[in-house]
Amino acid sequence: MEFARPLPGFLLQRYHGWKATTHAENSAWYRRLADEGQRPRAMVISCCDSRVHVTSIFGADQGEFFIHRNIANLVPVYEPDGQHHGTSAAVEYAVMALKVAHLIVLGHSSCGGVQGCLDMCEGRAPELEETGSFVGRWMDILRPGYEAVKGDADMPHALEREAVSVSLRNLMTFPFVREAVEAGKLGLHGLWVDIGSGELQNLDGKSGQFVPV
Amino acid sequence: MEFARPLPGFLLQRYHGWKATTHAENSAWYRRLADEGQRPRAMVISCCDSRVHVTSIFGADQGEFFIHRNIANLVPVYEPDGQHHGTSAAVEYAVMALKVAHLIVLGHSSCGGVQGCLDMCEGRAPELEETGSFVGRWMDILRPGYEAVKGDADMPHALEREAVSVSLRNLMTFPFVREAVEAGKLGLHGLWVDIGSGELQNLDGKSGQFVPV
Amino acid sequence: MEFARPLPGFLLQRYHGWKATTHAENSAWYRRLADEGQRPRAMVISCCDSRVHVTSIFGADQGEFFIHRNIANLVPVYEPDGQHHGTSAAVEYAVMALKVAHLIVLGHSSCGGVQGCLDMCEGRAPELEETGSFVGRWMDILRPGYEAVKGDADMPHALEREAVSVSLRNLMTFPFVREAVEAGKLGLHGLWVDIGSGELQNLDGKSGQFVPV
Amino acid sequence: MEFARPLPGFLLQRYHGWKATTHAENSAWYRRLADEGQRPRAMVISCCDSRVHVTSIFGADQGEFFIHRNIANLVPVYEPDGQHHGTSAAVEYAVMALKVAHLIVLGHSSCGGVQGCLDMCEGRAPELEETGSFVGRWMDILRPGYEAVKGDADMPHALEREAVSVSLRNLMTFPFVREAVEAGKLGLHGLWVDIGSGELQNLDGKSGQFVPV
Repeated sequence: MEFARPLPGFLLQRYHGWKATTHAENSAWYRRLADEGQRPRAMVISCCDSRVHVTSIFGADQGEFFIHRNIANLVPVYEPDGQHHGTSAAVEYAVMALKVAHLIVLGHSSCGGVQGCLDMCEGRAPELEETGSFVGRWMDILRPGYEAVKGDADMPHALEREAVSVSLRNLMTFPFVREAVEAGKLGLHGLWVDIGSGELQNLDGKSGQFVPV
Repeated sequence: MEFARPLPGFLLQRYHGWKATTHAENSAWYRRLADEGQRPRAMVISCCDSRVHVTSIFGADQGEFFIHRNIANLVPVYEPDGQHHGTSAAVEYAVMALKVAHLIVLGHSSCGGVQGCLDMCEGRAPELEETGSFVGRWMDILRPGYEAVKGDADMPHALEREAVSVSLRNLMTFPFVREAVEAGKLGLHGLWVDIGSGELQNLDGKSGQFVPV
Repeated sequence: MEFARPLPGFLLQRYHGWKATTHAENSAWYRRLADEGQRPRAMVISCCDSRVHVTSIFGADQGEFFIHRNIANLVPVYEPDGQHHGTSAAVEYAVMALKVAHLIVLGHSSCGGVQGCLDMCEGRAPELEETGSFVGRWMDILRPGYEAVKGDADMPHALEREAVSVSLRNLMTFPFVREAVEAGKLGLHGLWVDIGSGELQNLDGKSGQFVPV
Repeated sequence: MEFARPLPGFLLQRYHGWKATTHAENSAWYRRLADEGQRPRAMVISCCDSRVHVTSIFGADQGEFFIHRNIANLVPVYEPDGQHHGTSAAVEYAVMALKVAHLIVLGHSSCGGVQGCLDMCEGRAPELEETGSFVGRWMDILRPGYEAVKGDADMPHALEREAVSVSLRNLMTFPFVREAVEAGKLGLHGLWVDIGSGELQNLDGKSGQFVPV
């Protein structure tokens, strides 16, 4: 492990600040969370993007949100093939073990992953077509979504929102998700946030459209 | 999409609060991040656990951290087989496209995923052995790690820390990660935090041991 | 240049320590900052005082803050007369070239420059009245501020805070600052810190008063 | 003052961290510095650049360094004309009131101000020639320096180092600086640091050359 480097000082400094304030002020709660385990109310699937932190948008309370973050907040279809499926594992754990009441998929503007998918689908990114491109193969999940919004005047926003819809549809292919939803034990929610303006749009189930909250 | 539900009121309320405070106070910065794109200094791979938010521990600055969160903060080995690999895609994007300077893997105490792996490896969780168990198959990534710390007196902490070491070792199986590390363009860091006490431990490259910062 | 002396040993020793730790731990980031240039989020105008280091109060992250430090954290009015104006040049560079999102003026207690201005305005410092006194002529910028708080019971604190207000008002006399502020691309912030207690006060735009954060 | 905005949350968070750690751990010293005033050992004149913090390179001890930061770490010649001269005021205060033992001018690589001067002197930046350009007029201080190193193969580094030499020479035009230097009460030092490699070079008085420390 000789390649492992010590923690940079600026992070050490911030950690010590957090320990002396946030952790100290909530020590009893942290202790209880450690002893009794977590009991999050919702699972949020959002993007890795450094400009979109759900802990900031919805408050960073400890123990409240079970958060999975991946490129373009995508969920693949149900595929129990014995391979590693990190997103499916997170969903399974949240719904089956933690029994969260809400499952929220949060998309956003200026998404690099979605832009890459758009470039790939429109033939502008041959490198993403290669078998060895992890980003390209991951974005394949969104290809059907591209077909659905192809030609939309509001690209890439339309595809960013479609990524949320695709993920929600794919979530419904998971038997345990569908059962929980139909039993009224789990609510699925689709959101899209504009980084620049801070506007949040909510996927309306009836119209299938995203509308400002 | 009739199954999509409107956003719960308590989240709507928090969003409006965030929009009127955090976003308003940083509107110029959000605008710039939207127009010019992100330039995060570090990628952090941590757990989905609701009790461990790196945005809290290291500060929630917008644009600073590219964050991937999955069960037990695991990274699989390099496997360019054309399948969906969410974690590998996130690492590829962070290192190749964003050129982050630091890649930090953050583990933690009371990790449900690691406990599941431990139960599975010790024969106490047959359900996790099934092909259809996404959590079980995801935790297979940690099986070699179990063999390495088997019998350690400090279980499950030993396995939680090993999950961090396994991920760092697996990261080095990615050609583009190894190259960036050897070129001095990327630093790998391993951390483990104790939820109850808030103690942070740093993986020391020389000894391979975790030591309090 | 025979008057130039070698670096004192105690600084040489500290430099070597910094090089082997902070720079080594952040070498990839320093390399990137050198190759791609800086992209600071904020400009901070503070005093030269050795007891007030913004890099300490707000964290010393490399690349984050563009810092101008002068006596009493003063900004003169906009005066494009072709002369040397170091402070105006720093503000012009930060706003026009770097496009910072925040411009923070940080004042502090026990400010020697402000005390000098107070003594001068109250006739106790004839030497500062002389044409050849650079400190006196620099502190002339704060004279209108003295008139505004004259007789305040909380001197010299009132004048130290007024120095921050005067600088913010003067900043608004710069066309490019006013335009950026009105376009929502730049936020102006006024702060005052008490060295002894560490209390930080925030200038409230509505009331014009400084209130503890 | 309605244009003054509240302090952004991420800075508030960092301030609280600093207050609970650095300030708390040094409260007695801060109290004494507040009661008895500062007594810095050295004055440092460095650039505003966010990548070069002398508090980091030489340690961020409270009370040790009186720091003036401006574009390209320049010092104009002695000019007691009754106008505002921020840099001259800082030097006067440090030498006459604080009686610092060392006056250090720290230059650095990739300096935007020096690059601007170079472009201006070589006719590539007409906008900097305008009377209204504060950066251009400020960089006029370095014009004689350009003539001295014109044609040097190692541009812009040669001009960055020359900026340090010019400042030291100009410092000697201040009667009170020359007297303190000749009385052995003040030592002048010239430094240049390379951001990418972290190498520090020391101006050797005899040869007039910069040599790695």
